[in-house]
Amino acid sequence: MNAALDQLKFDSNGLIPLIVQDVKNGQVLMMAWMNREALERTLATGKIHTYSRSRGRLALKGESSAHFQHVKEFWTDCDRDVVLFKVDQDVAACHEGYRSCFYRKHEAGDWTVIGERAFDPDKVYHK
Amino acid sequence: MNAALDQLKFDSNGLIPLIVQDVKNGQVLMMAWMNREALERTLATGKIHTYSRSRGRLALKGESSAHFQHVKEFWTDCDRDVVLFKVDQDVAACHEGYRSCFYRKHEAGDWTVIGERAFDPDKVYHK
Repeated sequence: MNAALDQLKFDSNGLIPLIVQDVKNGQVLMMAWMNREALERTLATGKIHTYSRSRGRLALKGESSAHFQHVKEFWTDCDRDVVLFKVDQDVAACHEGYRSCFYRKHEAGDWTVIGERAFDPDKVYHK
Repeated sequence: MNAALDQLKFDSNGLIPLIVQDVKNGQVLMMAWMNREALERTLATGKIHTYSRSRGRLALKGESSAHFQHVKEFWTDCDRDVVLFKVDQDVAACHEGYRSCFYRKHEAGDWTVIGERAFDPDKVYHK
């Protein structure tokens, strides 16, 4: 159906690494995995879907929080074994409440939290 | 030796995904893998080292081309199972000659090459 997807190289588990980047400022928001179905659902709906290895199933990113990632650009790399999506991010990408999952910076041999929470995870996930 | 590295989660093969980003303009340059030794060598030398799964060994990024990636920032994600380095890139990251490995954009169901080569791979790698 989509010849471009046929050219991608999935690993022995049928998965391909996914990098999601903020289309507005270039911030890397998260790294996750996709299978062919997640890719097809992402292109069909315009919202990022991943394959959750921990849950063993397809997952709409933002299905619990309603913080969706709206696809603006779709890229692959030289080996066609990684995909990169540039998105419009609703509120925040990280389940910890931060805009990006990459909120820990290495400084003086330890991790420093950079950035403030965009939402309170306890409230959003009704824990 | 480095308590921050002790907190990272490597997979069952002892590897962790690596995203390399241009510190100047935020462009994602490549995705690769590191083991603990690659991380330690990277921090000790200030140049990105990866674990090459195809070659089954530690590899200094740029060892053939002399196009090194000079570490400026080192981040990890919420789950501490992905690392992100922001670097100063010499010349270009991709062995195909492009600044970034992500030079193929999805357009109208096919891949379009975006960007011009920064170097000629045939000359740099003496093929």
